[in-house]
Amino acid sequence: MTLLSDLPLRDDLRGQVPYGAPQLHVPVALNVNENTHPIPEPVAVDIVRALAQAVQTVNRYPDREFTELRERLAGYLGHGLTANNIWAGNGSNEVLQQVLQAFGGPGRSLLGFVPTYSMYSILASGTGTEWVAGDRDADYRLSPDTAVAWVTRTNPDLVFLCSPNNPTGTPLSLDTIAAVYEASTGIVVVDEAYAEFGPVGTPSALSLLPGRERLLVSRTMSKAFAFAGARVGYLAADPAVTDALRLVRLPYHLSALTQAAANAALAHTDEMLAMVDDIRGQRDRLVQELTRLGYAPHESGSNFVLFGGVADPHATFEALLAEGILIRDIGIPGHLRVTAGTRAETTAFVEALERLGRATGAEAE
Amino acid sequence: MTLLSDLPLRDDLRGQVPYGAPQLHVPVALNVNENTHPIPEPVAVDIVRALAQAVQTVNRYPDREFTELRERLAGYLGHGLTANNIWAGNGSNEVLQQVLQAFGGPGRSLLGFVPTYSMYSILASGTGTEWVAGDRDADYRLSPDTAVAWVTRTNPDLVFLCSPNNPTGTPLSLDTIAAVYEASTGIVVVDEAYAEFGPVGTPSALSLLPGRERLLVSRTMSKAFAFAGARVGYLAADPAVTDALRLVRLPYHLSALTQAAANAALAHTDEMLAMVDDIRGQRDRLVQELTRLGYAPHESGSNFVLFGGVADPHATFEALLAEGILIRDIGIPGHLRVTAGTRAETTAFVEALERLGRATGAEAE
Repeated sequence: MTLLSDLPLRDDLRGQVPYGAPQLHVPVALNVNENTHPIPEPVAVDIVRALAQAVQTVNRYPDREFTELRERLAGYLGHGLTANNIWAGNGSNEVLQQVLQAFGGPGRSLLGFVPTYSMYSILASGTGTEWVAGDRDADYRLSPDTAVAWVTRTNPDLVFLCSPNNPTGTPLSLDTIAAVYEASTGIVVVDEAYAEFGPVGTPSALSLLPGRERLLVSRTMSKAFAFAGARVGYLAADPAVTDALRLVRLPYHLSALTQAAANAALAHTDEMLAMVDDIRGQRDRLVQELTRLGYAPHESGSNFVLFGGVADPHATFEALLAEGILIRDIGIPGHLRVTAGTRAETTAFVEALERLGRATGAEAE
Repeated sequence: MTLLSDLPLRDDLRGQVPYGAPQLHVPVALNVNENTHPIPEPVAVDIVRALAQAVQTVNRYPDREFTELRERLAGYLGHGLTANNIWAGNGSNEVLQQVLQAFGGPGRSLLGFVPTYSMYSILASGTGTEWVAGDRDADYRLSPDTAVAWVTRTNPDLVFLCSPNNPTGTPLSLDTIAAVYEASTGIVVVDEAYAEFGPVGTPSALSLLPGRERLLVSRTMSKAFAFAGARVGYLAADPAVTDALRLVRLPYHLSALTQAAANAALAHTDEMLAMVDDIRGQRDRLVQELTRLGYAPHESGSNFVLFGGVADPHATFEALLAEGILIRDIGIPGHLRVTAGTRAETTAFVEALERLGRATGAEAE
């Protein structure tokens, strides 16, 4: 049998393991921050209708410029954006990879503030970009001063700001984003994958785009739009940025089926986002219940809650899994992360956790 | 207005233009080697049914291991392959990019034999891999001796062999492939994107896989399967190779819709491939008719024909376009390339070309 080590693999990949949470089939899956609500039936019907039409011409290559999709995404984002400001890919991971292919790579560096979305460093590695891990303030916050100090000291070619931050849920102020942009000479990406779950009225980094041609705001349809299976990530930026991404994208990277499904979903934005309020409510309930049980949940503007005070995260993870409830051990000592699901899923999680006994408080922050 | 040159773009991308044939809407599109036959109605119905089911759970991430798809692709390829031998991506371009991410990159080199599929050098550039352009023999053939001489002289980390070759259509013998493998210490990819269009009984490089753990055979559903819009490329290789590709793939890179559509199509392999015989017939007709008109078509094992003897390729391209017929000027002096379409499309092309007058023969080889 041939081993991986028998192949002429790149040196920097030797000994690595593939990224990805365990794929377990359980009744209550709250581990990867999916929107656990299926999309509404009337919207599903329209999506299938659009897919059926796309299948009629699936022998042809798709629209390489995904023009209708860019128009619809611009319309959804508002802020005066047009199709020329929009780019999309098979998930925001692909969009961020394309950003690194265009503006990062060998001899260039990417600054992020850990703990943050773990794909950032993996994407850096995959594109030969140096990964610089900046620190955060107390409780995972990121002040303008702290962020700017890191930018000034490390002079990165790119900065990725996760807003709100994954896996901590921490909101990020526009002040920090604007300050990072001013202090930097490179590309600044604000990853707003979970932005729709923030408190109503929270301003988006989209409002900072005018006059900031190095600012990119990425989004995804995976979370608020309940579209993780369709793999649609996107970003808004100056049209020159989308021209840069055209130089590194693979031709026809977005399938005709992806484009058709996303276009149909975006024609039903209100219905698709109807679950967001409900999820926000369950997120707030998680924070209350975790506090009641003696855990230390962190402030979250996302559809998930990171909570400390877990004496033995591995044991708690396994005990919940034994009850058919899958959450995420993201490697922060004393912490676990749980997605805000439906009311029933949240109840199942809270009740199972309560049966395991209250938090010891020993490692609570 | 911000210009691309105002952004901190990578130096090696400056001045480049995006890859891609013009996207023009014409009655007869024979420019990008699509299968111009829509998929059969009964198969389309089953695909839509599978998509409708996938939409029900599209709020969840897709199967990251696309297990059913790998099983079905293995079943289609035969040769004793199993799911463990199979990898897939959003088009074979993505698969080849992943191969370069795993085995190429900075400090490594990729050998190809030009003229060949122009994405190879672009993928090399995009992954920081050095591109080495080897020569071919007369009439674009590639003998074992010529190929081995290039391998021995340049010692590449990867060799990409396009079989049959695009854009020339030239068949490639297993002798050349086996000789390249023996002479090389690196990864050898045989790109069989158009393999199904070869003469019946043509052996596939798949037959060379046993005992050759550095040999990869890539395929696509875009051509023979009439599935260009769905973006499904794949490869067969030693299971260790697929483990290597797991290290560089983006998690959940294949959407639930892509997997569902491809699985449904692969359940109807015979019907999906029913058009292949017809396309082969039109390809052979193109060769005959081009010869009759005084052009110099090259031998083709593909669904397209490269023909020489074109006095002014640009003028001929434009004159055909004015009649609603789009073919491809692939930059080889005195040559144009045309896809074998339906009988009616082939007739339209031949008649339009005949109206333009016979070939001058001046630049025929």
